[in-house]
Amino acid sequence: MTSTDLQAVVAHMGAAARAASTKMAAAPTAAKNQALLALARLLRSEAAALQPANAKDVEAAQAAGLSAPMVDRLKLTPKIIETVAEGCEQIAAMPDPIGEITNLRRRPTGISVGQMRVPLGVFGMIYESRPNVTIEAASLAIKSGNACILRGGSEAIHSNLALWKLVQAALVEAGLPADAVQLVQTTDRAAVGHLIASPEAVDVIIPRGGKGLIERISREAKVPVIKHLDGNCHVYVDAQVDMALALKVTDNAKTQKYSPCNAAESLLVHAAVAGEFLPKIGAMWAAKGVEMRCDPRGQALLKDVPQLQVVPATEQDWSEEYLAPIVSLKVVDSLDEAIAHINRYGSHHTDAILTENHPNAMRFLREVDSASVMVNASTRFADGFEYGLGAEIGISTDKFHARGPVGLEGLTSMKWVVLGQGEVRG
Amino acid sequence: MTSTDLQAVVAHMGAAARAASTKMAAAPTAAKNQALLALARLLRSEAAALQPANAKDVEAAQAAGLSAPMVDRLKLTPKIIETVAEGCEQIAAMPDPIGEITNLRRRPTGISVGQMRVPLGVFGMIYESRPNVTIEAASLAIKSGNACILRGGSEAIHSNLALWKLVQAALVEAGLPADAVQLVQTTDRAAVGHLIASPEAVDVIIPRGGKGLIERISREAKVPVIKHLDGNCHVYVDAQVDMALALKVTDNAKTQKYSPCNAAESLLVHAAVAGEFLPKIGAMWAAKGVEMRCDPRGQALLKDVPQLQVVPATEQDWSEEYLAPIVSLKVVDSLDEAIAHINRYGSHHTDAILTENHPNAMRFLREVDSASVMVNASTRFADGFEYGLGAEIGISTDKFHARGPVGLEGLTSMKWVVLGQGEVRG
Repeated sequence: MTSTDLQAVVAHMGAAARAASTKMAAAPTAAKNQALLALARLLRSEAAALQPANAKDVEAAQAAGLSAPMVDRLKLTPKIIETVAEGCEQIAAMPDPIGEITNLRRRPTGISVGQMRVPLGVFGMIYESRPNVTIEAASLAIKSGNACILRGGSEAIHSNLALWKLVQAALVEAGLPADAVQLVQTTDRAAVGHLIASPEAVDVIIPRGGKGLIERISREAKVPVIKHLDGNCHVYVDAQVDMALALKVTDNAKTQKYSPCNAAESLLVHAAVAGEFLPKIGAMWAAKGVEMRCDPRGQALLKDVPQLQVVPATEQDWSEEYLAPIVSLKVVDSLDEAIAHINRYGSHHTDAILTENHPNAMRFLREVDSASVMVNASTRFADGFEYGLGAEIGISTDKFHARGPVGLEGLTSMKWVVLGQGEVRG
Repeated sequence: MTSTDLQAVVAHMGAAARAASTKMAAAPTAAKNQALLALARLLRSEAAALQPANAKDVEAAQAAGLSAPMVDRLKLTPKIIETVAEGCEQIAAMPDPIGEITNLRRRPTGISVGQMRVPLGVFGMIYESRPNVTIEAASLAIKSGNACILRGGSEAIHSNLALWKLVQAALVEAGLPADAVQLVQTTDRAAVGHLIASPEAVDVIIPRGGKGLIERISREAKVPVIKHLDGNCHVYVDAQVDMALALKVTDNAKTQKYSPCNAAESLLVHAAVAGEFLPKIGAMWAAKGVEMRCDPRGQALLKDVPQLQVVPATEQDWSEEYLAPIVSLKVVDSLDEAIAHINRYGSHHTDAILTENHPNAMRFLREVDSASVMVNASTRFADGFEYGLGAEIGISTDKFHARGPVGLEGLTSMKWVVLGQGEVRG
């Protein structure tokens, strides 16, 4: 396809999505829930029928020499299909965010002014590998009354097409426009370029994938982007702390899973407790093979822990998102130093203080400039499901519009409603 | 100044604003209010001292042959100074939006999850002519705990510098960082280009001025923009309507003032009432010299109104923001047709239905895709003060982040707070 043809295809999809979005915005809650339940039913009844398409992607990935974890992420196993079907049912069971009117208040002029929650319109979702994202994005679009244009990875194209056909069938069964969820059917990468430069087609772009993808999209987009970059999360162990709690939570934040963005990457410990805390956490991490990159004071306190890998930290380490059994460590002399360090080197994702001191807890909550700030809890809780959003379309490391885990509400905006009885301005 | 020098100056201001923003975010409510009250006091006590600086701008504008209304907008009259001083006092009296925690709820894991309102950080404000915007922007920045970088029009540079010195004195008196409000002191237009391309310096840009300025900034900005483009506002007179109310509100929406963005530019009338309504509104507008650009049915109903200027509407008229005694008119056969017309040709700013039919009112509120939707009230009410925001930093015609009139809350974002007692993820 030539670039002009491709641009025409994207423009055509955009116009169809725009038209469908008007119908979706006005769709009854019952119809949206019916589509979600139909989709859950179809996923289960057509699970076997999805396999040949999925097998094509898996075989191509194996032939192309993709790593075993990458190939695994492509597979639509019965367990994954059941999980996404349950996800559709859970979203159907959630309250409809659309149409909610809040803060409707009478003004001195006689008019009543409030705000109504409405869909954003059309969102574009650009994602890599896992085909279940197709169903997650579609189900969030349906419930939030948006239309969406999906662009999955080329390595999952056959699986995505098969899943998308089920979405279309579910929409039609519920009397909703099939064009409300569209899939870019070409694997030409230039399609992404056209999509993210089309404010007339999409109101917001949500990329999910590697940092390279997200940086490229942020740089080139001509529409707003809900983007998720680094997760350099900190745990700060304060001077007044329950030692058992501090060990348990710090260990969980770092080692419960190494790859998620909400895993801790950097540990700050107040000098008053470092002498007791560090050898203990060091012993736990020696057993798990966690490498500790330390400032000089930390290194001195850890050097005698048997089997522990202790190396000096470089300036670069303070900014690093390892996603691995590695942690940076700094001993600090005050809460102020900890907050300043986090705001300077962190990625504004998720940071936790472990403390028994109430004023310190409150200052940390207020002054640490991150999407999630925690007291006495593991950073691993920073997640749409754990926060009770019911579903998560992505995580935002920006401050504008939505911050942190983004659920249905992040796909909406508030418009003003004014109810009068013939009032005019004097 | 060379471009490199200018870039260094903007970078320096950005770094200073960033540092000040951390202090402003943590500033006590009392200190912020003290600064606002000090600013009000200084404006009044230094009103006479501001005059020589203001006179320089006014004289230069007159010498440059600016129009009388443009020159008038530059003048810091005693009335304008009193108005902005009162504005500072009103903002001081408002509740502090910062630190508010909402929806703090216990999750099954034991953690409590809520959201805390925090400042965005640093906003950039780019505005033309009226120097009182300097005080409005500064006072909103102070109350919302943000830092800001202001760039006023070159024609008001001496007035802006004099006003800004008062802001700095007020900040220092309250123990807040003087760098929290900075003013670009060069009139070189390239400074704007550097500012809007510096995400490390500013979190959001708010332009206020002509459409040319706003389009240029939106196109070139590398940071989010809260922008206000057209106000092509509609009044739709439904089939079931109180005729006296419809005449009063329609007339107010169009003629109470022609230049504001929330004045009506287009009138849609249901065919069932057009025969009665149009000759009456036509007679009112003939007296006021309002030109009506009509579809054929409207023209037929208005052709016999004495003195009324009736001309055929072109396709272009449906999209026009006249800001003048001109209105476009279309007779429609249904609510559906009215909604479709507004969503197609409108600018998503403010649209009103005049009706006694409840289902129609509710459908209009939900289905018209505009920042403000109104029932039985004049579009002229679409304004931050009328909505009870206490102050208005701008109006957004976008859907992302803030929509419609933007007050203090539009300068904030919500971060997640998690309170635990040692919970970890399993």
